[in-house]
Amino acid sequence: MNPPINRQVRLRSRPSAIPQAEHFEITQEPVPELEDGQVLVRNVYLSVEPAMRGWLSAVGNYSEPVPVGAVMRAFTAGRVQASRDSAVPVGAWVTGLFGWQDYAVVRAGDIQRQIAERDLPLSTALGVLGINGVTAHYGLLQLGRPQPGETVVVSTAAGSVGSCVGQIAKLQGCRTIGITGGETKRRMCLEQFGFDVAVDYKAPDFAQQLAAACAGGVDIYYDNTSGAISDAVLTHLNKGARVIVCGTAAVSSWDPIPSGPRVERHLLTKRASMQGFVIFDHPEHYDAAYRDLAQWIRGGQLRYLEDILVGIEHAPDAIAGLYRGDNLGKRLIRIAED
Amino acid sequence: MNPPINRQVRLRSRPSAIPQAEHFEITQEPVPELEDGQVLVRNVYLSVEPAMRGWLSAVGNYSEPVPVGAVMRAFTAGRVQASRDSAVPVGAWVTGLFGWQDYAVVRAGDIQRQIAERDLPLSTALGVLGINGVTAHYGLLQLGRPQPGETVVVSTAAGSVGSCVGQIAKLQGCRTIGITGGETKRRMCLEQFGFDVAVDYKAPDFAQQLAAACAGGVDIYYDNTSGAISDAVLTHLNKGARVIVCGTAAVSSWDPIPSGPRVERHLLTKRASMQGFVIFDHPEHYDAAYRDLAQWIRGGQLRYLEDILVGIEHAPDAIAGLYRGDNLGKRLIRIAED
Repeated sequence: MNPPINRQVRLRSRPSAIPQAEHFEITQEPVPELEDGQVLVRNVYLSVEPAMRGWLSAVGNYSEPVPVGAVMRAFTAGRVQASRDSAVPVGAWVTGLFGWQDYAVVRAGDIQRQIAERDLPLSTALGVLGINGVTAHYGLLQLGRPQPGETVVVSTAAGSVGSCVGQIAKLQGCRTIGITGGETKRRMCLEQFGFDVAVDYKAPDFAQQLAAACAGGVDIYYDNTSGAISDAVLTHLNKGARVIVCGTAAVSSWDPIPSGPRVERHLLTKRASMQGFVIFDHPEHYDAAYRDLAQWIRGGQLRYLEDILVGIEHAPDAIAGLYRGDNLGKRLIRIAED
Repeated sequence: MNPPINRQVRLRSRPSAIPQAEHFEITQEPVPELEDGQVLVRNVYLSVEPAMRGWLSAVGNYSEPVPVGAVMRAFTAGRVQASRDSAVPVGAWVTGLFGWQDYAVVRAGDIQRQIAERDLPLSTALGVLGINGVTAHYGLLQLGRPQPGETVVVSTAAGSVGSCVGQIAKLQGCRTIGITGGETKRRMCLEQFGFDVAVDYKAPDFAQQLAAACAGGVDIYYDNTSGAISDAVLTHLNKGARVIVCGTAAVSSWDPIPSGPRVERHLLTKRASMQGFVIFDHPEHYDAAYRDLAQWIRGGQLRYLEDILVGIEHAPDAIAGLYRGDNLGKRLIRIAED
């Protein structure tokens, strides 16, 4: 029997800003034979993340840039199709950094997680019950330390992290203000994700709308954008405010570093903090987060939206599409049956 | 007997940037009779602080602006000359926000501190053993959490807060890098305050010198300046770095807010934090700080410099002089004998 063919999305050239379809190419090669201790994962869902721009960037980042010619680094969720490690049974649902490809030959230690929640869709393991949900959970609860009655502002509020942050903040008894782009996403924030107020940053009177929403001041700003949105929010901080720096989606390039209003005076007069974090530093937090998130999903308290492209041929343009705002909800690529 | 005459430095008009001599005037009035529960303090030393610019500013700050026509708000150290409160004996050394004037009629609750360390000069109560030392102690130890072997960078390193920060960091086993302006202050940092490296921000190759000094990265940046100095330091942060925002001496006006390189990417990729604070929020920390500081001063481990102007007529120009860099060490005005 011939080995299966592995389609792989590889980096063709290094983007200087937002990665476009032309920076990738799809190649094919046969899946190698397993050696002792190896496991063959059939990827079912490939994740598409805003952070991939950083993973592909040559300048200052939190992980080594993906080498030109390599399979694109990506979280995937899939099934174990063959196993030469007794700890990893055939049929297990697993996630890991298994790349934009049909198959990955990995070791048990490469598996991020064997998914226990088989009652929930496999796709959730890459979003609300995956790194996005865990990021929201850690950043908001551990760094933001929300107290009942506090006001929490979230940028990219309709996104996969932002929508979790808003709902978790609500579960803590906070008042939630979502910032998003366009009337559709604004309504999603209100109707799907239960934000108390949702503000469209593309509206001509955004600053006034935000000021009205933040009349009582902002205690926690969960920042996924940087840029002009954040500049507007920072003028409304309350004393002791916590700004959680989770992403910088509104800044198209950090080379050179763009300018913006200096933050020091806000931080000083408001006794406020800005704290950056990268969720991969905190694996000890994952289990508690999965437990909470799964319970909230089952209870209908944590809703999520997915934007699923079908077919690996959509991968090369998928990051650019995120930055164009094509998607509603967590973007995934489905390349096999569950 | 005629009551003594009280010379008072009053705010004549509100400065829009750095307060100059012309914004003040010196007036005179008789000291009123004491009522029950009141205390008459004879001010001996008047403090001059960079923060006074903020106290005089009409825009966003951490205290109400000094009203036009009022006596200039200032910390002073003096002697109790008369008392109608049995808790405050005549002859006690005290500090408080008693203003730029010869005499203040106050109540026991207005006294910030009855000075116990009569073996140390009274002037220290306004500097190294006063708000400057306590600010350095709290900001560095509580917010910076220095660990032995870490690298600590301090701006305005020859100043009254910065010089304390550097020496306290050294006592914690840290490597210390001071940033200051000019060769005289640079040598003071090395010779008086024991910094491991001192860099002159006015040097044409400042960026290169700083980069060389920070080759191992910066774990704590104690920021007294904001501006271009901070921009340079932030490019050298280590993972998990703590930036303590204590002052913004390098920014001449915050109205409108000046621009600078955005900080979010540094904070994110370095998992770093920026934290503003105002020492007046933390009175519960003062006693422990005074205890440490007095012990270090007596032990010769904490050195300090004072720049003492003699005569109240120097007060109106004294803030402008700070921003011109006239002073070496903590600036005080001596208006009576100890």
